[in-house]
Amino acid sequence: MINIAVLGYGTIGSGVVEVLSTNGESIKKRAGDQINVKYVLDLREFPGDPIMEKVVKDINIILNDPEVLIVCEHMGGVEPAYTFVKSALLKGKSVVTSNKELVAKHGAELLDIAKENNLNFLFEASVGGGIPIIRPLNQSLTADEIVEITGILNGTTNYILSKMSDEGIDFDTALEQAQKLGYAERNPAADVEGHDACRKIAILSSLAFGMQVDFEDIYTEGITKISAIDIRYAKALGAKIKLFATSIRQGESVYAMVAPVMINENHPLFSVNNVFNGIFVKGNVIGDVMFYGSGAGKLPTASAVVADIVDAAKHLGKNIWTIWSSKKLVLSDINLVQHRFFIRVSGEDATMKEQVVKLFGNIEEVTAGIAGEYAFITPSITEQELKEKKDSLTGVLSVIRVRF
Amino acid sequence: MINIAVLGYGTIGSGVVEVLSTNGESIKKRAGDQINVKYVLDLREFPGDPIMEKVVKDINIILNDPEVLIVCEHMGGVEPAYTFVKSALLKGKSVVTSNKELVAKHGAELLDIAKENNLNFLFEASVGGGIPIIRPLNQSLTADEIVEITGILNGTTNYILSKMSDEGIDFDTALEQAQKLGYAERNPAADVEGHDACRKIAILSSLAFGMQVDFEDIYTEGITKISAIDIRYAKALGAKIKLFATSIRQGESVYAMVAPVMINENHPLFSVNNVFNGIFVKGNVIGDVMFYGSGAGKLPTASAVVADIVDAAKHLGKNIWTIWSSKKLVLSDINLVQHRFFIRVSGEDATMKEQVVKLFGNIEEVTAGIAGEYAFITPSITEQELKEKKDSLTGVLSVIRVRF
Repeated sequence: MINIAVLGYGTIGSGVVEVLSTNGESIKKRAGDQINVKYVLDLREFPGDPIMEKVVKDINIILNDPEVLIVCEHMGGVEPAYTFVKSALLKGKSVVTSNKELVAKHGAELLDIAKENNLNFLFEASVGGGIPIIRPLNQSLTADEIVEITGILNGTTNYILSKMSDEGIDFDTALEQAQKLGYAERNPAADVEGHDACRKIAILSSLAFGMQVDFEDIYTEGITKISAIDIRYAKALGAKIKLFATSIRQGESVYAMVAPVMINENHPLFSVNNVFNGIFVKGNVIGDVMFYGSGAGKLPTASAVVADIVDAAKHLGKNIWTIWSSKKLVLSDINLVQHRFFIRVSGEDATMKEQVVKLFGNIEEVTAGIAGEYAFITPSITEQELKEKKDSLTGVLSVIRVRF
Repeated sequence: MINIAVLGYGTIGSGVVEVLSTNGESIKKRAGDQINVKYVLDLREFPGDPIMEKVVKDINIILNDPEVLIVCEHMGGVEPAYTFVKSALLKGKSVVTSNKELVAKHGAELLDIAKENNLNFLFEASVGGGIPIIRPLNQSLTADEIVEITGILNGTTNYILSKMSDEGIDFDTALEQAQKLGYAERNPAADVEGHDACRKIAILSSLAFGMQVDFEDIYTEGITKISAIDIRYAKALGAKIKLFATSIRQGESVYAMVAPVMINENHPLFSVNNVFNGIFVKGNVIGDVMFYGSGAGKLPTASAVVADIVDAAKHLGKNIWTIWSSKKLVLSDINLVQHRFFIRVSGEDATMKEQVVKLFGNIEEVTAGIAGEYAFITPSITEQELKEKKDSLTGVLSVIRVRF
């Protein structure tokens, strides 16, 4: 029997306990031993719940019990999660976490401590919910030099953009619907401003390139400015607007950004809709691969956590190699990155066109039957050029990067 | 330095040598040691090739060299691959293979021998080319009871069906194009009759359900009967025709089949086109996940092989647990499986409709502007019922299972 402790009995923590119970028999076969939840750390009481007797309020009870071999952390946020997880590792316990803030901030250090102590620090559930992506990056794509990782990593924004596209509604209405369904928080900033996706792409980039990518360094733009009219133009182009979190190697340097982009049906992530997540990886030998599934939700996320518990149980006393050095990866200047840009400006077609062509050269005109404005796609130019040219245009209504 | 031997220097074997050279530095980091190709077994000579000096014609040179720790087999076919691989394992060498015939036929036995000898027998490249699917099934989806695995597992047939759909051409013309491009063999039977997909779904099913699924037991139907007219109807329905290799658990039993099906855009595999492969997995807690990528090709397949070599190198002397018992899984009778069926019959609309409704009840009529025939989708009925009802219909032109 392998004893574990669950820190935090919210949605994910209780999902973990549920999955361990529902699939107990097959999990035992996979792990080679029975997994037993010995403690649940939570400040609340859970009368009537099967784990009622296991609830403790003091982390030291768990840290000081040598029978606990694996600690699962699902409290969220950096503190006190960081202190608890670090202490658990130093006390000789492997740690499994679903906490993206913790991993993005302290992943490299916690992996080091785990390695030094022949333990494991696993975090499959911190990115992409149930989708296997951390383990494939660490263990399956080992023959490749990763050239690109691009993900739709936030289910809330993907749901909002899908609804806007399906129903022609505006951002505020779609957000309200998402909140009603529990897909968005009452304070939705972390999702809609791109901060959640930013932490996740920081984690994936650190693993893909083997060095610390600080999330604070990643250019991040949310979806709050995307309008129903932008979506009408996208449709006229056979395109969709998606929030991409992306990290691309160009020669020796890597740039990363989170921003809405237009993609068409040729992109493998085109069909990733609603609350689903998708992660696209390009390697220098494997070419394009894509992973798709539920990016959030109690049971899918718990499935990823329990898979990590099984892995930790199978590797007691043996560190599973993960290459994520604490050496900082200096990202290249986003101003040098080239894109085509979709731009809408207010004004009459004829007059605007002349001005725009003079400024951008060979543009692609886009029409969607909207009066009083002019829309086009620029040739491929740098972010810096875009800024400069945009400043000399009056009445810019929106700018969206184009990935086709 | 870890010495390996490559058996068979064809497309994949030479790809493996190329990838080990191209990405040597990063592979060394991942494996923890330099991987050195000490021998290449092939009956041919390769003058001028960098491996020229390493070519041997006698397997015993490899088997009897204790320095060789890992053997990669890429000869294809059951013999002599089986004898060579088994001997290598018995001589204490881990084995990596891309050979689906070998794995489908002898996977359980070879895994057992590897386990008894603290070695590994790895075969990521045998299904889905470069797509990580074997390792995710073994190591990432361990918290789940697998309910379904459905794959587009054969790039040749997917290319043919995509071309037929894109260009409105018939099967023979599309096959000819595929042959010209090297996507189909001169004798295309193994692909177009579904045998290749059948072996691959047998491997995935054995891993998903932990017991031996014999490929001979799997109902297999190819794509040779699919016509340009069938595709026109599919388009009228907003659907595509795809060759699905599928394995589904219903209660305590599992059925498996390889057959063309109609799917619409709600299916995660809808956008898997051309030579790409996709594998959809449904688990009882994770829900739906999907893996997408190049299902064949020199470098993608070699990428998967080299990832296995890295894993074998990291686990010298330690077996990585894989649950695939040699106990046979008795598949349930395909006649009991329910589907909706798309059916075309020759005759005039009015007269046929009456006959068809009498026979099948509440049908869905399908029109695509084709004269002299009548097309419809049945309600959900068993394969047995379909057979019986079909026998009493005259002029049946085609029958295709519908998955929406």
